Amino acid sequence: MFGSAKKQGPTKNRRADLSELTELQVWITSPDSECDGYPALTSDESYELSVDQPVAVLKAPKVWGALHGLETFSQLLYEDEFGAKNINSTMISDFPRFPHRGILLDSSRHFLPIKVILANLETMAWNKFNVFHWHIVDDQSFPYLSRTFPQLSQQGAYHPYTHVYTPADVKMVIEFARLRGIRVVPEFDTPGHTQSWGKGQKDLLTPCYTGSKPSGTFGPVNPILNTTYDFMTQFFKEISTVFPDGYVHLGGDEVDFTCWKSNPDIQKFMEQQGFGQDYKKLESFYIQKLLDIVTTTKKGYTIWQEVFDNGVKLKPDTIIHVWKGNKQQYQNEMANVTSSGYNTLLSTPWYLNRISYGQDWQGVYRADPQDFEGTEDQKKLVIGGEACLWGEYVDATNLTPRLWPRASAVAERLWSSKDVTDIDDAFNRLSVHRCRMVARGIPAEPLFSSFCPREYKGI
Amino acid sequence: MFGSAKKQGPTKNRRADLSELTELQVWITSPDSECDGYPALTSDESYELSVDQPVAVLKAPKVWGALHGLETFSQLLYEDEFGAKNINSTMISDFPRFPHRGILLDSSRHFLPIKVILANLETMAWNKFNVFHWHIVDDQSFPYLSRTFPQLSQQGAYHPYTHVYTPADVKMVIEFARLRGIRVVPEFDTPGHTQSWGKGQKDLLTPCYTGSKPSGTFGPVNPILNTTYDFMTQFFKEISTVFPDGYVHLGGDEVDFTCWKSNPDIQKFMEQQGFGQDYKKLESFYIQKLLDIVTTTKKGYTIWQEVFDNGVKLKPDTIIHVWKGNKQQYQNEMANVTSSGYNTLLSTPWYLNRISYGQDWQGVYRADPQDFEGTEDQKKLVIGGEACLWGEYVDATNLTPRLWPRASAVAERLWSSKDVTDIDDAFNRLSVHRCRMVARGIPAEPLFSSFCPREYKGI
Repeated sequence: MFGSAKKQGPTKNRRADLSELTELQVWITSPDSECDGYPALTSDESYELSVDQPVAVLKAPKVWGALHGLETFSQLLYEDEFGAKNINSTMISDFPRFPHRGILLDSSRHFLPIKVILANLETMAWNKFNVFHWHIVDDQSFPYLSRTFPQLSQQGAYHPYTHVYTPADVKMVIEFARLRGIRVVPEFDTPGHTQSWGKGQKDLLTPCYTGSKPSGTFGPVNPILNTTYDFMTQFFKEISTVFPDGYVHLGGDEVDFTCWKSNPDIQKFMEQQGFGQDYKKLESFYIQKLLDIVTTTKKGYTIWQEVFDNGVKLKPDTIIHVWKGNKQQYQNEMANVTSSGYNTLLSTPWYLNRISYGQDWQGVYRADPQDFEGTEDQKKLVIGGEACLWGEYVDATNLTPRLWPRASAVAERLWSSKDVTDIDDAFNRLSVHRCRMVARGIPAEPLFSSFCPREYKGI
Repeated sequence: MFGSAKKQGPTKNRRADLSELTELQVWITSPDSECDGYPALTSDESYELSVDQPVAVLKAPKVWGALHGLETFSQLLYEDEFGAKNINSTMISDFPRFPHRGILLDSSRHFLPIKVILANLETMAWNKFNVFHWHIVDDQSFPYLSRTFPQLSQQGAYHPYTHVYTPADVKMVIEFARLRGIRVVPEFDTPGHTQSWGKGQKDLLTPCYTGSKPSGTFGPVNPILNTTYDFMTQFFKEISTVFPDGYVHLGGDEVDFTCWKSNPDIQKFMEQQGFGQDYKKLESFYIQKLLDIVTTTKKGYTIWQEVFDNGVKLKPDTIIHVWKGNKQQYQNEMANVTSSGYNTLLSTPWYLNRISYGQDWQGVYRADPQDFEGTEDQKKLVIGGEACLWGEYVDATNLTPRLWPRASAVAERLWSSKDVTDIDDAFNRLSVHRCRMVARGIPAEPLFSSFCPREYKGI
């Protein structure tokens, strides 16, 4: 994607001592290259790259490391003043600090055309991200075209034909991602954030009441009906086959109890179950059953931190996704989650939908997911983090420059050693990297007053 | 630019009572249409549009009003569910509230490729903006290729060939703008904001001193040398011929006195002139001479508010551009400027480079340039305002979605009657208008969760 190497020379005395780099050999050193498989949380992503005349050698145990090494090789190339491609002699032994380095995109608040998703997967690969967390549906719209329940998008998408992801679209996204070493983890968030589900699936949501009468509006998924669990069983069976990744994200955040409280059938159920007025117990009742359903599909699951906070019983391999609070609060949460023995992902400092004037990438860069009070064993339970670009104010018109190069700061934090923290150094490298993305056709926005040798050609 | 009208019908009973609109007649009613001229501050932009079967008639005294009327006509068209174009019967009599409705783009902090400038001129026309304030050079770079002083861009541009505006480029921008009823007002800001000028023009800037020795750095334009004024005379003579508009923006903002204070020659000059330690007097001395030079080129001038604040003697037709302070401060400034009898432009509430999370267009929309304590005569001196998109964090990658549709809120404030202020109403119209811009190929960002029938096709 970056053109090939033509010239090679040591850093000093370059023009006087040119020599050709004639070949880049790529060796995958394990018996199973995993070329035909999917990347996973446990994938080996390491590689070693040696550039020396006349041959460069890239060695990696698996294809995933080889992909990263090829990307690194392309980034080592530079043009001299005559436009010739150069690369310096080097020896690199590289591997990620964290195995889960994700980006969340939200295709519900605004529909994201496939073209935008693919362009950003490509850019993720340039930044060595390896998880696309696809927050595919939410209150506002249901663009996922389900084979089992086609009425969900027929009724719940912004438009049933132009604003949906067909099975072929989803397949294309997954394969495009796989070829770049990126996992696709879909999120189907319940029981809250489901307004759009209710349009195509009768009785799935809780009818809200005003006094003794249904108000005509609906709340979270109705947790007291058997039909709800029948639906979820069928739905997540489909999801488990459509999305090959070992994990699915089940959401579980921000459940508003107002509607449940208003509904006399829910009230009766609460009484029967002995939940008193504690609606967190009802929420946990639902989540518990949902987790059991998803477990039968042989998937692991990730859930937003509220599910943990509410004390739901979780499988030991559950991943708790931390997203709330200020710095002290999320650090406390990371400490609590890991002291309970769960794997965790951090997103709080990386809500890139939040914008402010100036160089906010610096705060993004300074955050560290292992920066909390805890033992070494606790720290090991931090499997990485995700940059989140929630979609209320983002669609195809502004997604890409809002995400890049700010997400690149997250990428480095999650890949490089803990001690790579010099902000001036990062500024310089990030500036070069953003111009690299621009030269490759991606509208990554500037960090500050500057120019790129090749400016963005679009508008 | 929007396709032509096919069907026409009254608002009620549309499907039952279709009739064809066969023709749009455009009448320019003055003897001089001004078709071959340039738009000006005093141009008549009014028009009347009557749509009724079988003929629509657009009447305007001048071509400028006709252009606005054609734009309005295109925006009255809508598609029915079968994709057929419709327009309702209507009678419109329309004219702007303010004659100066501008957008400032900054091509110095980042170079803006011509393509981006043209795309935004086009979008300005859709929003009935009529002034492109081209902040073309500044400290960071000097992309304007001067025929008289080619070394200015040769040395001062980010790149002497790829990051410059040639005479042909400038001509193209001016003509593209003229055809859309848009004036191009260039800004050549002095004596501050001129670091890039110094690279190609020896002795133009003030040498700064550390103790008794020149430090090697430079400050504002050197106001004590005759060569400075010789240079400015030649330079602005060129500018006056290259840019046909009746006005040039001369800047005059944010002059830092540190360097002047350090320089022994400047100190001596201050003494000779009896300025004491009041460097504002030296600044005014420079500006005074500059204004006299520009006056000989037969141009009017706009200056940033500091020049007025510092008490420089100004021609009665000078335009004072207000940009500083909080709401109370800019309202006081507007009151002071107009009570002194000067025309004024407001920009303070419309610094669109400043961004924040959420619907910040609402604050933009609520600001009103005549909202200050003053007489009716004072209010009449407010000729309009400008949305400013300073370039520190903006280039071709993110300029367009950052500007639109937020600038559309400014456009409506400056065009429509003072009493058009309903924010919910504005939200609904602005949402439709932003999808219109998207459908026309411009990445105008969303206001909130929503969709457009035709989403942006780029990335």
